[in-house]
Amino acid sequence: MLNAVKRDIPEEILKQTNKEVFKGTHHFDQHVYQKDGPKIKTVINSQGTKLVDSIAEVLKKCEIKDGMTISFHHHFRGGDKVVNMVMEEIHKLGIKNLTLSASSLGSQNDEIVYMLEDETITNIESSGVRGQIGQAISNGKLKGLATMRSHGGRVRAIESGETHIDIAFIGAPTADEYGNLNANGGKANCGVLSYSAVDAMYADKVVAITDCLVPFPNLPAQISQTNVDYVVVVDEIGDPSKIATGAAKPTTDQRKLLMAKYCTDLVTKTPYFKEGFSYQTGVGGASIASTKYLAEVMREKNIHMSFGVGGLTKPMCDLLEEGLCQKLVDTQDFDQDAVNSAATNPNHFYITAGEYANPFNKGAYVNKLDFVILAALEVDINFNCNVVVGSDGVITGAQGGHPDTAAGAKCAIVIVPITQGRIPSVCSEVTTVTTPGEDVDVVVTDYGIAINPKRQDLIEVLKDSDLPLKTIEELRDIAYSITGTPEKVEFKERVVGIIEARDGSIMDVVRQVKPYSFDD
Amino acid sequence: MLNAVKRDIPEEILKQTNKEVFKGTHHFDQHVYQKDGPKIKTVINSQGTKLVDSIAEVLKKCEIKDGMTISFHHHFRGGDKVVNMVMEEIHKLGIKNLTLSASSLGSQNDEIVYMLEDETITNIESSGVRGQIGQAISNGKLKGLATMRSHGGRVRAIESGETHIDIAFIGAPTADEYGNLNANGGKANCGVLSYSAVDAMYADKVVAITDCLVPFPNLPAQISQTNVDYVVVVDEIGDPSKIATGAAKPTTDQRKLLMAKYCTDLVTKTPYFKEGFSYQTGVGGASIASTKYLAEVMREKNIHMSFGVGGLTKPMCDLLEEGLCQKLVDTQDFDQDAVNSAATNPNHFYITAGEYANPFNKGAYVNKLDFVILAALEVDINFNCNVVVGSDGVITGAQGGHPDTAAGAKCAIVIVPITQGRIPSVCSEVTTVTTPGEDVDVVVTDYGIAINPKRQDLIEVLKDSDLPLKTIEELRDIAYSITGTPEKVEFKERVVGIIEARDGSIMDVVRQVKPYSFDD
Repeated sequence: MLNAVKRDIPEEILKQTNKEVFKGTHHFDQHVYQKDGPKIKTVINSQGTKLVDSIAEVLKKCEIKDGMTISFHHHFRGGDKVVNMVMEEIHKLGIKNLTLSASSLGSQNDEIVYMLEDETITNIESSGVRGQIGQAISNGKLKGLATMRSHGGRVRAIESGETHIDIAFIGAPTADEYGNLNANGGKANCGVLSYSAVDAMYADKVVAITDCLVPFPNLPAQISQTNVDYVVVVDEIGDPSKIATGAAKPTTDQRKLLMAKYCTDLVTKTPYFKEGFSYQTGVGGASIASTKYLAEVMREKNIHMSFGVGGLTKPMCDLLEEGLCQKLVDTQDFDQDAVNSAATNPNHFYITAGEYANPFNKGAYVNKLDFVILAALEVDINFNCNVVVGSDGVITGAQGGHPDTAAGAKCAIVIVPITQGRIPSVCSEVTTVTTPGEDVDVVVTDYGIAINPKRQDLIEVLKDSDLPLKTIEELRDIAYSITGTPEKVEFKERVVGIIEARDGSIMDVVRQVKPYSFDD
Repeated sequence: MLNAVKRDIPEEILKQTNKEVFKGTHHFDQHVYQKDGPKIKTVINSQGTKLVDSIAEVLKKCEIKDGMTISFHHHFRGGDKVVNMVMEEIHKLGIKNLTLSASSLGSQNDEIVYMLEDETITNIESSGVRGQIGQAISNGKLKGLATMRSHGGRVRAIESGETHIDIAFIGAPTADEYGNLNANGGKANCGVLSYSAVDAMYADKVVAITDCLVPFPNLPAQISQTNVDYVVVVDEIGDPSKIATGAAKPTTDQRKLLMAKYCTDLVTKTPYFKEGFSYQTGVGGASIASTKYLAEVMREKNIHMSFGVGGLTKPMCDLLEEGLCQKLVDTQDFDQDAVNSAATNPNHFYITAGEYANPFNKGAYVNKLDFVILAALEVDINFNCNVVVGSDGVITGAQGGHPDTAAGAKCAIVIVPITQGRIPSVCSEVTTVTTPGEDVDVVVTDYGIAINPKRQDLIEVLKDSDLPLKTIEELRDIAYSITGTPEKVEFKERVVGIIEARDGSIMDVVRQVKPYSFDD
């Protein structure tokens, strides 16, 4: 059945997943539904500790069994040790047929890829699956389905009960013996625990795993004792050098600097750029450069950001320190400066992933964004974006907050170089749709800027500016003139994954790729 | 049917309420149940405001109708204007048969007492019902039942779905247009919004009422935008002079000073008084004096409190300022000093009523208390306490956190003068059981101290001290020797209220009193 972005979703997948096709970003606005609740085991005693000696022991206490759904967060990013550590103990027990529900997975989890083939893990839910797990899924090694959700979409799935987590494992930089958890003050600080807040509130069993036990009460607590069943102390939950990578160096890539300049020029010429505007940007070189250009204009015009949203990096924290930004609301920290800012700056606030982006609550922060600056693997002439599947058809990226912020922001800007490697970034049809074109207002490339024809108001405001405005088709033609018209990737019939829209409907499917060598 | 405190609970009440009799404080420890969830109306748009012009308008938007359950918090205490203001608008609509679920009600709500007789309100759930509403209930003016719950018990009732709130009204000292609420920074500051956290999370519709609209985002937020549907701005939500009464003056009452001295002597002689102990105390003169005596011993012995829990007043905040207490966790502020401390001291932490005391979560703060110092209207020779019903049989007090902290604390101490007015405080049988004797470890009076025989360990430790130890029967006899043996209050047959145990079972019933004059 064709959905609103003209993708044909196979009937058997709709049946298998009990889902609808995507009908447009606002289709579920004002929709009424009943929230799920976890099964709780009460604690009406004063024995006062939830400490358990080992992961093996806690798995027994949680009565883990075949077919359960278990969950993890990805705040430790490339340095995460929790997923592999827990999965190894589960594997020893011979447990099969698990659904692994993670806020994201990456190449740090390569070592558990064999658990797909031996059917320890048969379904995966994640923002994305970079690294060997993504390759394995694209090559048909996962028995069930991979469901790729945005950060907001994951919260929706859990809060609505579509995903009911049996056991959540939460790596915690600090914990006390009663389960108050924080992301700062330990050996593996990650700034915030935003993605795991929903796991803590909706999982039947919640296990905290820490390498830094602190005295009770561990306050402020990002996760409360009232939601945690057990606390396990291990040697190391993360590699600090890979959790918070150093601040991105200012780029010297002329293409990126050019796009950054275009982006800032555009932002500052829109009516949304005024005292008290709000802003989110990403972690790439062009994004970071555009934040710096933006700061110059803000200083010059004495305009302040009321709040910045992140996924945060040093340049945004610098704006806060300088007073150009009044408040930061934070769901993830990408560098050490952001981690430090989260721990120390009183105007740097922890928010949950639900507060950030869940489309199914009473109003998330993304709804209040003026601007979001995004990247993409591909964008097509309908402004549809793809941030998950490589042009070779293999799963290699993650939805993250891309569809959430694009849907919410008044002006969603995608920055892409017109070609990446030998691949055209602007194309006739993206390999896979992950963010619908209706939510993408502007595409900025190194060869010009295309404004979505839906946004005649923006075109009107900007048409007489000195910005290099082009149609999206013109940008596509430039790209193809450089790379040649790309051939379509060939897929097998089997659907290995679905791209879920933030409202739970199906945006697209991902099919098994044709050639495969596990060692490549 | 007789319950664990030997109260006979009528079968028809068990049937009517679908409840069990109380079987002991720990009966439901490790009990597994499914949490409730609210019905949510999603907000997937960027229109960006939840402001509604008036209470009348918001009632329409919430589709209020006969038979609904509506809720309020009591953080504005004697100065609350929200309950009356909202109820008046509801009354104008002719709505009938409401269940009024408040964290507490008091004489500030006297002016809505007529809504019991005209059946606007036919059921009441509250910690207590002081003032004219309490009198009206005791005199049979409420068509249905009054259910008196502890602060923790109320959270249990809501989270378990026993009470499903249709519309919650939350008075908020500050709010932004998207529903981020805080208790500090406005015209009617109350320090914390702890009691309303559960309403915000579990009510279908949540209405914030404020007299101080601030720019978005109002951070830190004690209640998040994601749980709030509408924001209404009114002239005045509370009378500041009655919200936070001035700091209690040091008492000069020799009886109270004597009891305070006994209490501190006892506390400091128990094995729980050591570095890192935890402590909660009340707002009465003896409690406040005992905190001051305690501070002297702490200084002298260089012993620090790891955390204090409240219901907070100046003396506890002074301990924090001085460094004798390391952290305060706060669910209610009784004076201006506590409100100020909540707003400014970084070691003074807001917690929800659920975190404080809910017996049906994974472990509340009360479970971690070493000491709690409590008051009572009556305590009997089985150590059962009554804090709700006066010796004249009329509802006049509130459970508050009494049963919660008594259940949780390792050493629960009740301070009562042996007589109050001409009434004996220590008696053979309390008028109504509100906290079971199994949870009360020590009774301190001006005529001596009784330790619960259950606590042979404490008796052993203290038997050779210079504390004036007596049996509880001896204390009762002294009381009766002063007042004479009291006559039993006479009640009518009709049950007008139930005293709910924190686990939801029935601790006792309250019957209609015999004489009544509404004007007295």
